[in-house]
Amino acid sequence: MTTTAERHNSKAIVVFKPSGQVVEVEIGTLLSDAAVEAGIPLNLPCGGQGRCGRCRVKVEHGAISHRSGVRLSAAEMEEGWALGCQAVVKGDAVVLVPEQEAIEVEFITQTVGAERIALAAEFSGELDPSVRRAHVTIEPPSLDDQTTDWDRLLRELALQHDIHDVRASLPMLRTLGRDLREADWDVTAILEMGDPALSTCSQPRLIDLLPGDQSDRCYGVAIDIGTTSNVVYLVDLLKGKVVDRASAYNAQISAGEDVISRIIFAGKRDGLSRLQKMVLKTLNGLLEELTSRNQIPARQISKAVVAGNTTMIQLFLAIDPRSIRKMPFIPAISQPLPITAEEIGLNINRQATVDCLPVVGAYVGADITAGVLASDMYDTNALTLFIDVGTNGEIVLGNRDWLITCACSAGPAFEGSGVRHGMRATAGAIEEVWIDHRTYEPTYQTIGQLPARGICGSGMIGLLAEMFVTGILDKGGKIQRDLPTPRVRVGDHGGEYVVVWANQSGIGADIVINEVDIENLLRTKGAIYAGFSVLVQSVGLELADVEQVFIAGAFGQYINVEKAIQIGLLPDMPWDRFHYLGNTSVLGAFYSLLSRPMRREVVELASKMTYLELSADNTFYDQFMSALFLPHTDISAFPSVMRILEGKNE
Amino acid sequence: MTTTAERHNSKAIVVFKPSGQVVEVEIGTLLSDAAVEAGIPLNLPCGGQGRCGRCRVKVEHGAISHRSGVRLSAAEMEEGWALGCQAVVKGDAVVLVPEQEAIEVEFITQTVGAERIALAAEFSGELDPSVRRAHVTIEPPSLDDQTTDWDRLLRELALQHDIHDVRASLPMLRTLGRDLREADWDVTAILEMGDPALSTCSQPRLIDLLPGDQSDRCYGVAIDIGTTSNVVYLVDLLKGKVVDRASAYNAQISAGEDVISRIIFAGKRDGLSRLQKMVLKTLNGLLEELTSRNQIPARQISKAVVAGNTTMIQLFLAIDPRSIRKMPFIPAISQPLPITAEEIGLNINRQATVDCLPVVGAYVGADITAGVLASDMYDTNALTLFIDVGTNGEIVLGNRDWLITCACSAGPAFEGSGVRHGMRATAGAIEEVWIDHRTYEPTYQTIGQLPARGICGSGMIGLLAEMFVTGILDKGGKIQRDLPTPRVRVGDHGGEYVVVWANQSGIGADIVINEVDIENLLRTKGAIYAGFSVLVQSVGLELADVEQVFIAGAFGQYINVEKAIQIGLLPDMPWDRFHYLGNTSVLGAFYSLLSRPMRREVVELASKMTYLELSADNTFYDQFMSALFLPHTDISAFPSVMRILEGKNE
Repeated sequence: MTTTAERHNSKAIVVFKPSGQVVEVEIGTLLSDAAVEAGIPLNLPCGGQGRCGRCRVKVEHGAISHRSGVRLSAAEMEEGWALGCQAVVKGDAVVLVPEQEAIEVEFITQTVGAERIALAAEFSGELDPSVRRAHVTIEPPSLDDQTTDWDRLLRELALQHDIHDVRASLPMLRTLGRDLREADWDVTAILEMGDPALSTCSQPRLIDLLPGDQSDRCYGVAIDIGTTSNVVYLVDLLKGKVVDRASAYNAQISAGEDVISRIIFAGKRDGLSRLQKMVLKTLNGLLEELTSRNQIPARQISKAVVAGNTTMIQLFLAIDPRSIRKMPFIPAISQPLPITAEEIGLNINRQATVDCLPVVGAYVGADITAGVLASDMYDTNALTLFIDVGTNGEIVLGNRDWLITCACSAGPAFEGSGVRHGMRATAGAIEEVWIDHRTYEPTYQTIGQLPARGICGSGMIGLLAEMFVTGILDKGGKIQRDLPTPRVRVGDHGGEYVVVWANQSGIGADIVINEVDIENLLRTKGAIYAGFSVLVQSVGLELADVEQVFIAGAFGQYINVEKAIQIGLLPDMPWDRFHYLGNTSVLGAFYSLLSRPMRREVVELASKMTYLELSADNTFYDQFMSALFLPHTDISAFPSVMRILEGKNE
Repeated sequence: MTTTAERHNSKAIVVFKPSGQVVEVEIGTLLSDAAVEAGIPLNLPCGGQGRCGRCRVKVEHGAISHRSGVRLSAAEMEEGWALGCQAVVKGDAVVLVPEQEAIEVEFITQTVGAERIALAAEFSGELDPSVRRAHVTIEPPSLDDQTTDWDRLLRELALQHDIHDVRASLPMLRTLGRDLREADWDVTAILEMGDPALSTCSQPRLIDLLPGDQSDRCYGVAIDIGTTSNVVYLVDLLKGKVVDRASAYNAQISAGEDVISRIIFAGKRDGLSRLQKMVLKTLNGLLEELTSRNQIPARQISKAVVAGNTTMIQLFLAIDPRSIRKMPFIPAISQPLPITAEEIGLNINRQATVDCLPVVGAYVGADITAGVLASDMYDTNALTLFIDVGTNGEIVLGNRDWLITCACSAGPAFEGSGVRHGMRATAGAIEEVWIDHRTYEPTYQTIGQLPARGICGSGMIGLLAEMFVTGILDKGGKIQRDLPTPRVRVGDHGGEYVVVWANQSGIGADIVINEVDIENLLRTKGAIYAGFSVLVQSVGLELADVEQVFIAGAFGQYINVEKAIQIGLLPDMPWDRFHYLGNTSVLGAFYSLLSRPMRREVVELASKMTYLELSADNTFYDQFMSALFLPHTDISAFPSVMRILEGKNE
């Protein structure tokens, strides 16, 4: 037994209830870091900035100092409540951790979202994957021919398959002799052929050696690392088909809901490596699901192509992302060099190449270059607007001759963040709403036909549109308080509209939307509209010149174009110009996995894309201010909405 | 407390005295493996084959079964003595480990051997190392130029230094942004430029990024991994000079004195990784010595070129060496592909390339290709015989037009193994001997002028020659027992000759040479002589056609040509045709480190060398049998020896 006196002065013991975990930490450690050491990490949706208030803990005893407690009332502070990310250990303490909001790890594909995000994952081009399987039979060595094991294999690869200059990494060479002899000199060499056109190492690389003839099977994975959701396609490289797919929420959500929060988190002690571990946990879980369901050993997966936004790619590779967030917003690298699965711990063949697609800038990432590839807009004559609204909003405008792009810090409002009853598109989420313009009574539809638990993105767009056209909301986003309905009332956050009464809801409380929520939603939609307005203007065109609009991202899949136009999120043009493409990020990775020419195309189109930095653009702010209104200060740009409003007033 | 009953049946506890270390091991574990787990590895000079008897331990209590105890007497077995490598744990036991024969880790360079192995380590060619240092000043990023960190660095390397297509590994990219910013965009890039002429990856690779202008210093190391000794040269790559050197015994000696014992050891549980750790311990010790003595941080060492025999290279890389030992004797690889220091744990710059020179066959390794490079014999018209006698014997014959090589399993007799009072060339070793042909009394010289502790290789050659020409030994290697001197007597191993009486020796006992020792020495010298005889014959020439003889290896440095001819180790030809080259292995590595054309030359000469497998050669056995005599059955091939013997008889 050591007494307090015996222990070193600079350390303190913290007991976490109810689990009873005990850790000894340096005095000055953040309580949230101490919780990590105790193995019970707190959720930090805002990345530990002390803004969201979700990491609250109760200090039952001991010395903790508070840096800030903005989300706590005086009474709560009095009771001992503190924000884990803002509380500093000053001495021994006992801390109660309330039950953590579980991160939903249900696999979207397998449950409610399956059909919704189903894509036409087909590849009609010529198959030319970078992975090759070469079956070779080799003359065993003898005293007359003492050629080394490696040179003997190389000789046959050249003779039987015309493959030359093959390299191998040390782990392959270590077991080469045993592998060849155990297979009785009859083996299938798995080779990453590289690509001389890419400025990465262009020589073939041996990634595995399997006994006998196994040249009839060859798999790879296409991965999309979204800020919110991760998706993995298991792909048959010989047939060019998706064998199966799986998706799940990115486990990094517990460290921040948007990329900025994650970057802040990455700057904390071990933050970067913890974030990398989180996303690998998610991806390896999906890989485990796919390999076991399809009875394909992980070792048979010989390549991964990865898309995702710039921050997600850097966190996946554990490359310090801090300069992405700071002016002038610089990523570490535009084309990450190929690495092996072993180097980062992705559970496929250890020597398989993990190939991350190129990024354009800090906020236009590999998800967008992959998306442009998948959308084919780089190869069309029609002036095309490509919009990807996810946790961030990215926009690309152009055609086969030119491409211009920008990112708007849309924020994750449509994914449920910053909206009191917002939630992601999972079971119980209100996804469609209609409001009677006389009674102001809503009808709605939930995912899975379950009692409503909250409102997802498409539901919020529908709700805003309906509230606007029925006159509950004015142009400025304010709720008309004098309407003859109990559903409109004043709450803690100004005016609010009750969508579901407590007795009908799945959460035992009223589900409402309030003016603060609406302000956040309008800021998001305003940023997106201002983004593409500025893009179009910057090349001397008008929105009316746009011949087609591609909407990408899982979110885009669900939104109702009519409603999105009514709130001024999308430009007012004939509906048949809009096309939902679904998750183009994973689709671009899938194409790049199957075809080296397509992979080269991503590099080319990425270098062709002109990046417009909105924060350096004077017209953006004006456009943004105009777009904060419903649908816009310039109602003449929205003739279809004008007609509805006029019809209502008749 | 757990009682025996509670523990799992399949485990047993072994207590090692005198240290008192306790380990729990599976029943069936070898005692030598249990000792490793206890952190007190036993010396296994024969590689754990139960042949040398040096791993003896005393089982004081408990259940141990003996597989074999060939070196133990019945009385010793009765007392509980066992061979650690042959004793199997059957239950709980208490074992006494006698004091282990310490492996001498004194640094040869720093102590007695310093001047002796001093080489003309100079490089007169054109400096063209593969490592480049490029100082670049970079325009910081701005909103007007958001080029990524990596592309920004690449741009300046191309503009300011004409270096293109640079690659980097993930660890470099992870800290790139921070490194550039902390250095205020003024950095020195350390690049491994590769070599397009070698079939390894030919693109430049960034291995480090240092702040400010550090282009005025650039270091590398040339390494020779001998079976017995390891040597490291610290090299200034800008000046082309050896800054310092250090050497030490290879720590693997405790796992076997020759390559065959090491290969056997490598086949044991964890044997391969333990052997790799041992040699890395030795090399990292030497690096530590060099970096601290010269105040050069390990990070500043940007490249290592490594030479060594085939087994040493494979053990260094932890590549399974078993097929080297088994018919038809096949190495895993002839030209190991470059790896990074980090991959194997060599303590220089983590990203530095570790480049192992090519091998020719199982028993003609990179020490020989390096040696041929250093000797310049690949570029001469004169018919040259190159002999490297170390723990093994390798021979090369040829000139600029052709090269033929073979290896003879000479055995480490001249390094002290298999000779009762043999020892390595360290303090107290008898290195020269003269015997009075009338009194048979010897005079001798020891290294360091210390009381004699044993006889090293050059001493054994001198002793054999003197014993032969004074008539103590007959042609067949038998000691004449009827001589009028107490120095000739009969001991446990037949006739013996006392070189040093106990009262004058440094070991408190007589130092003798006996007929078994002599048999071993004759076998070694016979194998070497037979080797080069067969080589010369195989190309239709005679020994007399040889215009120069190069003797390489630390051992070659000390031997007296006259005496070596007298015992028939070297061919009888004018002494001025013999040249001592010293450690050509490290010298070849040194040249390859400084010059890419020289490095290419090693590959070329390695591929030019024809490997003659002696075990497949019918004439070798006949030649060997003839060469087992003093100096040879065909005395006419040794006219100078004939003259001496005739002179004696007159």
